[in-house]
Amino acid sequence: MSAPAGWAAMHGVPDDATLAARFLEARGRVSAVAHRTMVATSRTLDAHLGASVFLKCENLQRMGAFKFRGAWNLISQLPPEALARGVVAYSSGNHAQAVALVARELGAPAVIVMPSYAPAAKIAGTKGYGAEVLHYDLLGESREALAARVAAERGMTLVPPFDHPDILLGQGTAAAELLEDAGPLDLLLAPLGGGGLLSGTAVAARVLAPRCRVVGVEPAAGDDGARSFRSGKLETVTAPDTFCDGARTPSLSELTLALIRRNVRDVVTCTDAEVLVALRWLWERMKLVVEPTGALPLAALLCGRVPCRGLRVGVIVSGGNADLAALPAAIASGTAL
Amino acid sequence: MSAPAGWAAMHGVPDDATLAARFLEARGRVSAVAHRTMVATSRTLDAHLGASVFLKCENLQRMGAFKFRGAWNLISQLPPEALARGVVAYSSGNHAQAVALVARELGAPAVIVMPSYAPAAKIAGTKGYGAEVLHYDLLGESREALAARVAAERGMTLVPPFDHPDILLGQGTAAAELLEDAGPLDLLLAPLGGGGLLSGTAVAARVLAPRCRVVGVEPAAGDDGARSFRSGKLETVTAPDTFCDGARTPSLSELTLALIRRNVRDVVTCTDAEVLVALRWLWERMKLVVEPTGALPLAALLCGRVPCRGLRVGVIVSGGNADLAALPAAIASGTAL
Repeated sequence: MSAPAGWAAMHGVPDDATLAARFLEARGRVSAVAHRTMVATSRTLDAHLGASVFLKCENLQRMGAFKFRGAWNLISQLPPEALARGVVAYSSGNHAQAVALVARELGAPAVIVMPSYAPAAKIAGTKGYGAEVLHYDLLGESREALAARVAAERGMTLVPPFDHPDILLGQGTAAAELLEDAGPLDLLLAPLGGGGLLSGTAVAARVLAPRCRVVGVEPAAGDDGARSFRSGKLETVTAPDTFCDGARTPSLSELTLALIRRNVRDVVTCTDAEVLVALRWLWERMKLVVEPTGALPLAALLCGRVPCRGLRVGVIVSGGNADLAALPAAIASGTAL
Repeated sequence: MSAPAGWAAMHGVPDDATLAARFLEARGRVSAVAHRTMVATSRTLDAHLGASVFLKCENLQRMGAFKFRGAWNLISQLPPEALARGVVAYSSGNHAQAVALVARELGAPAVIVMPSYAPAAKIAGTKGYGAEVLHYDLLGESREALAARVAAERGMTLVPPFDHPDILLGQGTAAAELLEDAGPLDLLLAPLGGGGLLSGTAVAARVLAPRCRVVGVEPAAGDDGARSFRSGKLETVTAPDTFCDGARTPSLSELTLALIRRNVRDVVTCTDAEVLVALRWLWERMKLVVEPTGALPLAALLCGRVPCRGLRVGVIVSGGNADLAALPAAIASGTAL
């Protein structure tokens, strides 16, 4: 399967100096409005791993995930006339709520394209932020086609979930805060879905802590990113069977792959059973509501996939929009959903 | 039912100057070892209530509840020979784990008396901190009698859950941090069980913010504290039917009642259904694992029991040791356990 025509095909991959400059701008822009989320530590966890672990709690970010940062960084730069026409995004997850919330804050109309079978809470949450929700499946179009048509007809700006420098640099601002609050880190782990968070995290580390190794963690069932990282080509996966719903993205983009290959040391995978162990630590011990995708990096540490003994390790806990009806009972029983 | 012979019957109720001096000492002692827990805020919550609400997240405290503070404040003052003989406590809840953890940190043996039918996780947690667990029901004694016998036979110090100035002043150090981090408050709410947290919170406010009104919140089914507050006598309740397990204490002590009558403006009650609404805010919106008792104060705000419009309000979120197998599903469905 060939890659869709993405940002890099049209604009090329920015060089490091350009990215560094734009990243520092993003930082100022995002820090003015995002929550500076807590960095959590646990003596029990540190003793168990023989490491010093610093958890950047983006589950406590506005709308419950890091996605607020990238959406703000892109949308807040739109000129007034574009803002007045509004923004459109396709997503059934955290990106939808991020775009809806940022649009509301900036007084811009927002259209979110999602399937009619998305969880009722997510549809309600998105509408709660004032966005118009369109169901592509009921309208007989692909989500990309419907979003493109809405953008063209209404003059709206399409806000991609990860394939844009302003999105990924915005996501990287979480790592910047973590590096500032935790002090020097040897290792920095982030979940990998479409690659916006991981590539942005890696740019942040390159700019602020060039000796810190960055590692991405992906669900084993959806290992397109790990395979792409090794092959250098955009590998894909279709509807991966994992409860890490934030990392079911079918592939990276040319842009995120190029930046991940340039700045990331390794990409590893964890099974859902391993993620469940990490979720148990986070919910039971740390008292944090974390969604499965947000537990991927800690899972990689706990199952020994990423050795960390004696190291100072940062972890991006990416989000907390979890299903309370089912997930905690699965965590308590240790049985994957 | 007459009150058991408590601390005040033996020593009297300390005056304000003595309490203030001992509180400031407790603060230094506890701040050296306790987590300085996050103060969480939510724009959505503030908009909903028309107030500025500051949540002191003691669910993120060591062992998952404020109880660490009081246990540390008392046990760390024991002379070396008493520490070497060890400590004993009776509790099936957070106090047990607090005493066990503090004893381990200070190198003291600990015996915890709890029923054999206590939740397996709590028994395992207490043993995990290195304490010896004795089941009074299997030994055919009341828990008080067994604890007293162990204390006498082994020369151990009994650490009461709330009826001691060093315990309650230790608990008050959470409010001190909140007042420092949130700035001036008009109102400060804490859950009420045996009265250690509430009386300590009220002493903290009296010392540090004398214009701040302190209000206690109790489960409606276990309203002994509210009745005692009004009558001035120790009222009791037997096995109250509430899922707020941290506030099922049958009565206050003379000491905590006297301090609450002296320093607290009001004591109100909330039903379990009202607590469930607050838990939903805390888990779903704030991404915080909070136990039912810890949601009592927010429940009082959300159901209008304590008017707060236009005010700056502090809330002690007392703990997070919740049952993941059942509670979150109840929260999601809005059905009390």
